[in-house]
Amino acid sequence: MNQEYIKADNWSIIEEGFDQETVKSSESLFSLGNGAMGQRANFEETYTGPTFQGSYIAGVYYPDKTRVGWWKNGYPEYFAKVLNAPNWIGIDVLINNEPLDLFTCTAVKDFRRELNMKEGWYKRSFIATLPNNGAKVQVVITRFLSLDIDEVGAINYNVSPLDQDVEVTFVPFLDSGITNEDSNWDDKFWNTTEVHSKDNRAYIQAHTMKTNFKTCTFMASELLLDGKILNVEPNAKQKETWVGHTYTQKVKQGGVITLHKFGGYTVSRNHKADALVEAANSVLDQVSQLGFNALLEKQKEAWAAIWQMSDITIEGDEKAQQGIRFNIFQLNQTYLGTDPKLNIGPKGFTGEKYGGSTYWDTEAYCIPFYMATKNQNVARNLLRYRYEHLEKAIENAQKLGFNNGAALYPMVTMNGEECHNEWEITFEEIHRNGAIAFAIYNYYRYTGDYSYIPEMGLEVLIGIARFWHQRANYSEAKNKYVILGVTGPNEYENNVNNNWYTNYLAKWCIEYTVKQLHKVKDGYPDDYERIVGHTRLTSNEIDKWEEVAKGMYFPYSEKYGVYLQQDGFLDKELITVDKLDKMERPINQKWSWDRILRSPYIKQADVLQCFYFFEDHFSQEMLEKHFDFYEPFTVHESSLSPCVHSIQAAKLDRMDQAYQFYLRTSRLDLDDYNKEVEEGLHITSMAGTWMSIVEGFGGLRIIDDKLSFNPRIPNKWKSYSFKINFRNRIIKVTVSASGTKFKLDGHEQMSIRYKGKRLELNPGEEISA
Amino acid sequence: MNQEYIKADNWSIIEEGFDQETVKSSESLFSLGNGAMGQRANFEETYTGPTFQGSYIAGVYYPDKTRVGWWKNGYPEYFAKVLNAPNWIGIDVLINNEPLDLFTCTAVKDFRRELNMKEGWYKRSFIATLPNNGAKVQVVITRFLSLDIDEVGAINYNVSPLDQDVEVTFVPFLDSGITNEDSNWDDKFWNTTEVHSKDNRAYIQAHTMKTNFKTCTFMASELLLDGKILNVEPNAKQKETWVGHTYTQKVKQGGVITLHKFGGYTVSRNHKADALVEAANSVLDQVSQLGFNALLEKQKEAWAAIWQMSDITIEGDEKAQQGIRFNIFQLNQTYLGTDPKLNIGPKGFTGEKYGGSTYWDTEAYCIPFYMATKNQNVARNLLRYRYEHLEKAIENAQKLGFNNGAALYPMVTMNGEECHNEWEITFEEIHRNGAIAFAIYNYYRYTGDYSYIPEMGLEVLIGIARFWHQRANYSEAKNKYVILGVTGPNEYENNVNNNWYTNYLAKWCIEYTVKQLHKVKDGYPDDYERIVGHTRLTSNEIDKWEEVAKGMYFPYSEKYGVYLQQDGFLDKELITVDKLDKMERPINQKWSWDRILRSPYIKQADVLQCFYFFEDHFSQEMLEKHFDFYEPFTVHESSLSPCVHSIQAAKLDRMDQAYQFYLRTSRLDLDDYNKEVEEGLHITSMAGTWMSIVEGFGGLRIIDDKLSFNPRIPNKWKSYSFKINFRNRIIKVTVSASGTKFKLDGHEQMSIRYKGKRLELNPGEEISA
Repeated sequence: MNQEYIKADNWSIIEEGFDQETVKSSESLFSLGNGAMGQRANFEETYTGPTFQGSYIAGVYYPDKTRVGWWKNGYPEYFAKVLNAPNWIGIDVLINNEPLDLFTCTAVKDFRRELNMKEGWYKRSFIATLPNNGAKVQVVITRFLSLDIDEVGAINYNVSPLDQDVEVTFVPFLDSGITNEDSNWDDKFWNTTEVHSKDNRAYIQAHTMKTNFKTCTFMASELLLDGKILNVEPNAKQKETWVGHTYTQKVKQGGVITLHKFGGYTVSRNHKADALVEAANSVLDQVSQLGFNALLEKQKEAWAAIWQMSDITIEGDEKAQQGIRFNIFQLNQTYLGTDPKLNIGPKGFTGEKYGGSTYWDTEAYCIPFYMATKNQNVARNLLRYRYEHLEKAIENAQKLGFNNGAALYPMVTMNGEECHNEWEITFEEIHRNGAIAFAIYNYYRYTGDYSYIPEMGLEVLIGIARFWHQRANYSEAKNKYVILGVTGPNEYENNVNNNWYTNYLAKWCIEYTVKQLHKVKDGYPDDYERIVGHTRLTSNEIDKWEEVAKGMYFPYSEKYGVYLQQDGFLDKELITVDKLDKMERPINQKWSWDRILRSPYIKQADVLQCFYFFEDHFSQEMLEKHFDFYEPFTVHESSLSPCVHSIQAAKLDRMDQAYQFYLRTSRLDLDDYNKEVEEGLHITSMAGTWMSIVEGFGGLRIIDDKLSFNPRIPNKWKSYSFKINFRNRIIKVTVSASGTKFKLDGHEQMSIRYKGKRLELNPGEEISA
Repeated sequence: MNQEYIKADNWSIIEEGFDQETVKSSESLFSLGNGAMGQRANFEETYTGPTFQGSYIAGVYYPDKTRVGWWKNGYPEYFAKVLNAPNWIGIDVLINNEPLDLFTCTAVKDFRRELNMKEGWYKRSFIATLPNNGAKVQVVITRFLSLDIDEVGAINYNVSPLDQDVEVTFVPFLDSGITNEDSNWDDKFWNTTEVHSKDNRAYIQAHTMKTNFKTCTFMASELLLDGKILNVEPNAKQKETWVGHTYTQKVKQGGVITLHKFGGYTVSRNHKADALVEAANSVLDQVSQLGFNALLEKQKEAWAAIWQMSDITIEGDEKAQQGIRFNIFQLNQTYLGTDPKLNIGPKGFTGEKYGGSTYWDTEAYCIPFYMATKNQNVARNLLRYRYEHLEKAIENAQKLGFNNGAALYPMVTMNGEECHNEWEITFEEIHRNGAIAFAIYNYYRYTGDYSYIPEMGLEVLIGIARFWHQRANYSEAKNKYVILGVTGPNEYENNVNNNWYTNYLAKWCIEYTVKQLHKVKDGYPDDYERIVGHTRLTSNEIDKWEEVAKGMYFPYSEKYGVYLQQDGFLDKELITVDKLDKMERPINQKWSWDRILRSPYIKQADVLQCFYFFEDHFSQEMLEKHFDFYEPFTVHESSLSPCVHSIQAAKLDRMDQAYQFYLRTSRLDLDDYNKEVEEGLHITSMAGTWMSIVEGFGGLRIIDDKLSFNPRIPNKWKSYSFKINFRNRIIKVTVSASGTKFKLDGHEQMSIRYKGKRLELNPGEEISA
């Protein structure tokens, strides 16, 4: 595969030329999503070559029975799988009765894919010669998933015969006889209950096994000749898990036959289970009335509104520009924040991997992006998601032997239950609890909306504080509280003692919770009473928490003047990454697990993650010392690694290094650094890319309730700009080598900090600083 | 299930009364083996109730593709499975054309099983009433696997009608259409290539998939009426994977119809692959000529010879007597030491679990038993097994990143390749390498046969020393060599640093290897040259090994005056086992894995294992200190735990505690302590039981090339006796409260130590001391 086959472009992702080797990668890169559903860039027509089919419905999953080598007590019984959903995009195309299949066509010319990120559509075009009858046709397909009516997608499929008159047959179809690539026991995931057809519409009702998500997959179609709607009735056929409508039409050389297909899903998550067909018809009524073109216009408007708020421009570096827009585009395709039951899966709607939708990625990496580019309700919904799962987090902790309302949030989840199953992760990577508390703090810091804490957040914090209190134990030997047997963010260490990051978070969580208890008690006495009553919290218990927090142990090296990643880190052979033979990299592909574990190599920020979260707890000198100590041992083999390091390198004024890290995060998928893009995109790390620019280069912080900027710019760039929504005021920041410009929307004045000094912004006025 | 349904008896294992609930457990407890093949106590006739079918051929296994939750680099690709082999014992029995099936019979009276350990046979008898025709028959079946002709087993199946004349049909059959209970991917393990029948003999030729072990499963049968052979030809039938011979005979009320069936396997491990039928015929010729009764007589003689050498008598405690004989019997059924390619599987021939034949159990627990109760060649063969696998151990280490001939023996193996697949075991439980070196030392100490070391052992030691040298690393922080990321014998700790036992073994292995190098150089210069040439060993390399050994770090607590199981052990919450709620036990069933890992609880001797191996390195006072520190944290949830503790408690003169540990090890399976006997027996821990008596109570040691005894006796016992073979001289030791008697066989005088003092033994003379 040509590693960089994607053309550089400011607003589009473009592939030119047909290469069977890139089909699966492009299926990922050109994926579409609208927050409610997603679709890999699979072909509508038959393709008999290698392909990875994927249609996904947000929140619809399957609890696949866990399969492991050796069962450990307490393992979750299932591992939730992102489900491939019934296919609604399929259109069989026959030219003079011969199937169009790019894998068998004798010549495929002018093949081109374009994902237009500005307007939110995907277009594929080519000229193909059929292998048997030799007919040559030009095909242009445009597809999008509507942001306005998020249960529907639309396809405009054009065929134009170039060398002869032909008969074109379109068979738009629905198919629920689909499988998952990822399945532990080859279970059947979908059960089809009804297939039916009426006029130009068709429906398949199916439900997922076990979880019983009922869905109606639906479609409607219309035929156009040379742009004019033909009043034809399709010939309907149906099978057990399939329904298709056949249209056959003679088309003159140079003419254009077009099929408009609308399709999608109505789901029992959002509708009454017995009214899914009715709901589907309501959707189809709306889109039929609008028609393909009007719906596409609305799509462009919707994306314009998103970009209006979230675009980042980069002048002087087209690939960097394309990279950041791709990241922002994919984040918006994945999660729009309207449904508090949804969250941000690490692969979004672009693949099956990382079977589960929510990781600590959301709290640690994604929330800043959504807070700054959306209405603050979106981030609030992400927090509320964890509040809704509190009871299950308490149950999860109980399974592991904790009590009294201690909550351990799952490492991976769909519905609040743990659905990962490696003991060293599930049972030990407990720092995720800390990220969830941090997000509550971060949300209030950014939005100023305290109401979430008395309403919901405080109960989450209490469950988390209880967990840390119980999880730590007193070490007589150290006369301190220790946390034994954990895995930190650096998953290249397992079952270590006193991971500094985890211990620090634990202490912080307890202290932060106690502060919020006081604050809620003073400011929201009714909420306080309700919560204390509900959780049976006593001052005696709080005293015990505080004892643990005060007595927490932190491994530290006098010699190096750094906190140690964990007990015993200095016993390792401390050879820096630059001394490793390149042939040994990436170590996770070249080395056995034990060798990785006893090496000093770090997968992603661990000690430095704490310096990222709590940078105001540490001096610049301390950051430098820790960065200089740990970064040289860091292999960045997690997609979440470069962004934090980029931000810190920028803070240390090491712009070359910051820029290198930025490149690594921003074009991770476009340039397929990890040689795995065909499995799907790395969605959550894309939010980290956004942070690299806004927090790293732009130096955005919230200090004492005020926006603060300390901008830097990579040498290669002429300028860059970003917008942020801060407490319902929109500020545009444009940075160039010569200075920074700020422009505030709205009506009120606002004061910010710029390089440590106060700066007044007047609405509508561009200020150069 | 009635936990203690086995009747106490000095020489037999007896079950009385038919209980469907105990069928699977009894199938384990009444298992037969002869070192070359094994057979669970499955019924010959049809049984439609719950059963666990198991016929096993020594050394015949299947490399089942590894299935784990998350693949770690370096995992072995397969997990070898002990294979259920084609069934040769089957005999369908019909009474008046109705199948005899104990699951459906209306009444089963006088059901009795007896495993006669003295003579090596298994008898089952019962009176059954058939559900439809109501016929009442008495059935007596005797079965054994011949020790003389180890490819064959024999069955004597008697039916006697009690209340009417009946027609009896016997269909002795072979069946290769069998499956494994334990299979990762539901693969087919056997491929049948030929089924045929000639006169009263039949054969199925089949081979294992992948490993391609070719086998001929064979049988011959004869019919007897009232003890007289009937000259009848059976009616042969065959299917794709089955062949049966039908005999039908009218039997008068009170008469006895008997089927003799001989059957077994010839295997390409021992014969030419194309001569298996020929080999089978040769076996059948021999046994047909002898007949059932003469073959049984030979069996009794063979077992008498085994007991002559290995029996332990206990007066005054019938259950203890039965227990120890059961242990000795099963060890001899499992491994007789004649084939250096075989070894001692933890479940022997009694179940499928622990799929793999060789663990460190062999070197750490089994070798003393075989050295003392067999010709020394048997132990030599067990050592040679590892020598034959040296190349594969070097390959295994290479896969994990080691080089220069460093050898890491597998945790579990069939053919020298690793076939276990938990990272914390496979990659980290490396102390197994030390046990293999220790066994070389132990073999020489006991037998005085140094020749093994220049011939084979030294190369094994060099591979092991190289491994330890490379596996340790220099810690600047400690200015010592450390061994990071290991799992010790206590598998309730994973990925710990500086497990004291492992570090101690590593140092000892290097030092012992260097000593042997000098000794071989001086005494066997040709071997030395050959080995140094072959291994390219230089004095510079040896210097580096010694640097590591000399600089090895040992975690130690000044406060407690004990070596620490590993770094950080004292950070745990040190609550002793007696303080645990009984409802929390066994912790491996009640607690999640992370809770077990961070607890101080010990699965089996870890620090104390080192005190067992190297007791002369430590004072009695140190043993006491360490025993008193660690035993209270030990949950003994491994079958290998109580024996070592029993020996040490005896040494500390704590006979009540020693006796309690002894009971726990000796009747582990008979009383089904772990509620899992239906899966098979714990064979390797049975050798530990033997050690508990001989080394623990008897106080046997080898000191300065001399046998030494320091006997003690549990209060409950009147006396006990054991025999040992020490350098081809047989000494019988009889211990009672009043003193100890020694009797030496043979012709030469011999001096031993008794309670530290020299004692001269004259052949044939019993000496009281």
